[in-house]
Amino acid sequence: MPAAVRAARRIVVPRRHAFDEPLLLQSGARLVDYELAYETYGTLNADRSNAVLVCHALNASHHVAGLHILDDGTEDAGWWDNMVGPGKPVDTDRFFVLGVNNPGSCFGSTGPSTIDPATGRPYGASFPVVTVEDWVDAQARLADVLGIERFAAVMGGSLGGMQALAWSTRYPERVAHCVSIASTAKLSAQNIAFNDVARQAILTDPDFRGGDFQAVGVVPRNGLRVARMIGHITYLSDDDMAEKFGRTLKADDLAFGYGAEFEIESYLRYQGDKFSAYFDANSYLLITKALDYFDPAAAFDGSLTRALAAATASFLIVSFTTDWRFAPERSREVVKALLDNRHPVTYAEIDAPHGHDAFLLDDARYHRLVAAYFDRIHVAIVAARAAA
Amino acid sequence: MPAAVRAARRIVVPRRHAFDEPLLLQSGARLVDYELAYETYGTLNADRSNAVLVCHALNASHHVAGLHILDDGTEDAGWWDNMVGPGKPVDTDRFFVLGVNNPGSCFGSTGPSTIDPATGRPYGASFPVVTVEDWVDAQARLADVLGIERFAAVMGGSLGGMQALAWSTRYPERVAHCVSIASTAKLSAQNIAFNDVARQAILTDPDFRGGDFQAVGVVPRNGLRVARMIGHITYLSDDDMAEKFGRTLKADDLAFGYGAEFEIESYLRYQGDKFSAYFDANSYLLITKALDYFDPAAAFDGSLTRALAAATASFLIVSFTTDWRFAPERSREVVKALLDNRHPVTYAEIDAPHGHDAFLLDDARYHRLVAAYFDRIHVAIVAARAAA
Repeated sequence: MPAAVRAARRIVVPRRHAFDEPLLLQSGARLVDYELAYETYGTLNADRSNAVLVCHALNASHHVAGLHILDDGTEDAGWWDNMVGPGKPVDTDRFFVLGVNNPGSCFGSTGPSTIDPATGRPYGASFPVVTVEDWVDAQARLADVLGIERFAAVMGGSLGGMQALAWSTRYPERVAHCVSIASTAKLSAQNIAFNDVARQAILTDPDFRGGDFQAVGVVPRNGLRVARMIGHITYLSDDDMAEKFGRTLKADDLAFGYGAEFEIESYLRYQGDKFSAYFDANSYLLITKALDYFDPAAAFDGSLTRALAAATASFLIVSFTTDWRFAPERSREVVKALLDNRHPVTYAEIDAPHGHDAFLLDDARYHRLVAAYFDRIHVAIVAARAAA
Repeated sequence: MPAAVRAARRIVVPRRHAFDEPLLLQSGARLVDYELAYETYGTLNADRSNAVLVCHALNASHHVAGLHILDDGTEDAGWWDNMVGPGKPVDTDRFFVLGVNNPGSCFGSTGPSTIDPATGRPYGASFPVVTVEDWVDAQARLADVLGIERFAAVMGGSLGGMQALAWSTRYPERVAHCVSIASTAKLSAQNIAFNDVARQAILTDPDFRGGDFQAVGVVPRNGLRVARMIGHITYLSDDDMAEKFGRTLKADDLAFGYGAEFEIESYLRYQGDKFSAYFDANSYLLITKALDYFDPAAAFDGSLTRALAAATASFLIVSFTTDWRFAPERSREVVKALLDNRHPVTYAEIDAPHGHDAFLLDDARYHRLVAAYFDRIHVAIVAARAAA
């Protein structure tokens, strides 16, 4: 497809960068000879001041916006295409947006399903545990390669919002704005509990084979399926589920068996089946573990205020009223810690029915808010350029 | 052990009754040659007016109070021993209490793990799906055998509370008081979703063998374990879990692996392991299905008010503030429907931190409330006897 046609249709070609120097991980392990897959949207301006990094959550990737071509030749839209693009809240006519697949994931960057050059076989269980901070370090190295010294904004939702928060203190001089949506500064015991049950479903699936299933040509699909179903329940609000599915049956009468009988069963099983067909089980384990471990306050005797002291960015924190995975209360803890530090912060609690998933949906008030925030960033960039 | 010693130590000997006449089930199937295991506490008075039926929830049994001897010779207390016994809220010095193991369960009454006399092998997958209404019918037949025409009260928590509700309309003339605690008149989509994920974990465990695992000498322990872990999360409140476990690690440092690292992981896995060692997988499937199906309003175009119109009992409805499985809102729906019918109802919303599990715990305000309610029943019984 000619480049002009690709551009007109917003078809994005992912790129990869191979890193020679090992990445030292928080665990003490080293990631050697790794690659990062990424996509960019829009144009980096002359003074490189309009770059926005979008960090992805559990099952997403560097395919943030536009269309990308799947292995089977079909096209698929980026996971945040309603947020990022020409004329959208994060307007790629003004901003240069970068999406990076995190190492340990399974969409192109080095992860457990990648062939380990040292053995010629997939890393599998030998792939090291990575943390939110490790991802941020990897993203910073890619920014170096792309010549981006300082991001106009680092943003993300859920686990992506944790990465944005981590950027604000790990590389304070490199982040002008930190946008953390439907996120939290640490998982609760209940959050960890849900993650651990999901992991146990995978770890005890006989086809998991201690993590080296790929080498023997099997996939722990049953475990992954159950893991995803559990996760999915926590992404939706109770009310939204009641509204969408209620107690509606697929047939007129009760079946007195274990088929998918209620609509909600059918929906969840479908989500589980779909997920287990494309997601890597080891990646699921790694990424949920990164979620569990994230706790910037831990190094400061539990004080989130002290943990966020080093930040110099301005913050936009957004939560959704019916999100019970990372409830507004958790965002308010972050806002409180930012205010304690007198950091500039805008906080919005969006009244939305869709639970945690709301951060991915096209809600007018939510999108207007983000658009207004990014307009302000753009005006500041233009003003800085005029003053220079 | 001599009877006098047994009585003094409150050691209860379970009994069984074999029924010759088949039980017609809601599904249209028939339960033939079944037995019910039961226990009684206290003494039935001369006019048989002091009988209380206690209905059990998912993983409980007829072992309601006192001590019973396990297969290995050790003693175990009944699951509601803090509620039922001499001088306790349901005072067995005054009331004659009956606990019945429901058919389909796995503690003595006929269920999937019982040998089917027709084949000489365990029922397994061939055991029919049973409903709350089927259990109530089975309990009513046992009451006939014991000569109890009318219960002073039918009571239960959670799924037990559903049975109490079902009694109030299915056999209105046989229930003077209906006590339904931490319960609901129907499961929500989210409740069904959690049940279905748990079932999927069992059904997709290769050791489930289509339900006939017992015949080949295996047990789907991994599936049962995950099912129980999921269930257990929904029994505890978020706050209680935060309070008891928080983010506390078992060791000083992060392990960067998949062992039980946080206290909450260790606790949940232990609960899962323990449960999978004693509970029957087919019983788990059947009982969660009975939960999903319960919806007395369904036969009345969704009107719970009309569904409860036939009741003649007085009601005590209790909910707990932090119960998010069957939240107070669900009890209020029942209370509203009872009030619509001008049925006598006492409703209490107990401020307790322990989530759904609160109904099993020894909370002073909760127990005082139940004690006061049963005192009133006793006074009425004595007054009726004096007037006769």
